Amino acid sequence: MAEHSEITPPESSNIGIEDENQPKMESLGKSPSSSDLKYLTWLVLLAQAFGLSAVVLVAVWMGHFQNGFSWQSNPDLEFNYHPLFMIIGMIFLYSDAILAYRVFRNDKKIYVKLLHTGMHVCALLFAAVGLKAVFDSHNLPAKPKPNLSTLHSWVGLIAVVLYGLQWLGGFFCFLFPKAGMATRIMMMPHHQFWGMAIFGFSVAAALMGITEKAILSISKPVSYFGKPPEGLVANFLGLMILGLATTVIYILSRPEYKRPPSPDEEHLQLQEN
Amino acid sequence: MAEHSEITPPESSNIGIEDENQPKMESLGKSPSSSDLKYLTWLVLLAQAFGLSAVVLVAVWMGHFQNGFSWQSNPDLEFNYHPLFMIIGMIFLYSDAILAYRVFRNDKKIYVKLLHTGMHVCALLFAAVGLKAVFDSHNLPAKPKPNLSTLHSWVGLIAVVLYGLQWLGGFFCFLFPKAGMATRIMMMPHHQFWGMAIFGFSVAAALMGITEKAILSISKPVSYFGKPPEGLVANFLGLMILGLATTVIYILSRPEYKRPPSPDEEHLQLQEN
Repeated sequence: MAEHSEITPPESSNIGIEDENQPKMESLGKSPSSSDLKYLTWLVLLAQAFGLSAVVLVAVWMGHFQNGFSWQSNPDLEFNYHPLFMIIGMIFLYSDAILAYRVFRNDKKIYVKLLHTGMHVCALLFAAVGLKAVFDSHNLPAKPKPNLSTLHSWVGLIAVVLYGLQWLGGFFCFLFPKAGMATRIMMMPHHQFWGMAIFGFSVAAALMGITEKAILSISKPVSYFGKPPEGLVANFLGLMILGLATTVIYILSRPEYKRPPSPDEEHLQLQEN
Repeated sequence: MAEHSEITPPESSNIGIEDENQPKMESLGKSPSSSDLKYLTWLVLLAQAFGLSAVVLVAVWMGHFQNGFSWQSNPDLEFNYHPLFMIIGMIFLYSDAILAYRVFRNDKKIYVKLLHTGMHVCALLFAAVGLKAVFDSHNLPAKPKPNLSTLHSWVGLIAVVLYGLQWLGGFFCFLFPKAGMATRIMMMPHHQFWGMAIFGFSVAAALMGITEKAILSISKPVSYFGKPPEGLVANFLGLMILGLATTVIYILSRPEYKRPPSPDEEHLQLQEN
């Protein structure tokens, strides 16, 4: 039944991060008005508010309620870097790297691309140190704990491995040495879809991680189920992450917020094609 | 800074469930070829495989490993209906209700709309009984357990409340008494976006619920963290739900899979406008 068929190059989808192949807004029957773009500004600010609140809440949870941070000398406290760094990297910086193409709509594309790459370099570094922290916290104690038992750890690992692949694919295809225009046009919807999917997996992993840590570690004055202040901090942290994800995906879903190609980019596309 | 500005009717986004206002495929420069639609068939089958596997795995987990089902006479076993019914309703039936518009691309729109509604009636009934089961399981024991402490319960409640609102809004706007064409066109992108967002919240709630239940209830032969067979069932259940969500959102993201308006629908639109 699964006959081999000629693969047709996929069309550009509208839930993308970056789109060299997008139709001009005019061809969709409407150019973005200044009021459309004002909503974009407010939505981006809302995303920043959610993202920064999440970083503050996880820092308060780990730094205040869970006794602060340490490195390998104290593996229990080394764990506390894990949620902090994963949320800074895979949630906050990742979402802002996506939004760069919407926020800097009128800047030269290569600068926006370098900003997108730079933020993903930072995201990757935070994620790497965050992963080192959790493996150390399992492996270094006198009685080591098993790694990769839970659904959180499986989904988180899938997210990080896919992120690494997406990172390499994006770098070589779109930045250096950079594929030909036809390949870039073909790859762009996949880069966009998987960029969004990996963000979704990271959000799912974060919410499960919060659930795990809250059940296992909250004990004063009562357990997580007794609704202590620490439990509320954990829950609001989860809501901020969910609010950020909803806002970012809403922004991506709106065609009028996509970056319009500048005249010289269109000229270049015509030349290269 | 937040001046009041005239609200411009939003454009149709491409991540939608149903679209009476969509541009014809031709206007996007490409009509869907038979090979495009063959991929759609396989993707829909993949979604069914993920969805059915999730239902089977949660039934095995609750029915076999967690001692089966009962109603109010045994609140502990009554709980076991909660994950089963929520996953059947808010994950499996919900996702198939979304896909109805992609699968029955060439059928009369009112029939597809009635199917979409019918599946959401079933989804809502399963969700209602699933919620009753968890509240009973907390409230009926001799020593009641607190409700709504965890992030799972907060996100799940948000998903169900938004689902109820979306349900009512969708029913009155698109089915009966049905708003005018202009209102329907304006509301459609919001119905689409929130349909997808509530599905995302349900998936997030399900994954956190699996995490919670696995940590609290898996004990034989070892705890969840020792990787017992029951823990693997729970983790694969989570992966099936994530696979379903990824496949469904991929299908929604492809413009060529959208239902093309039939000639008489276009005629009707022109008349009503």
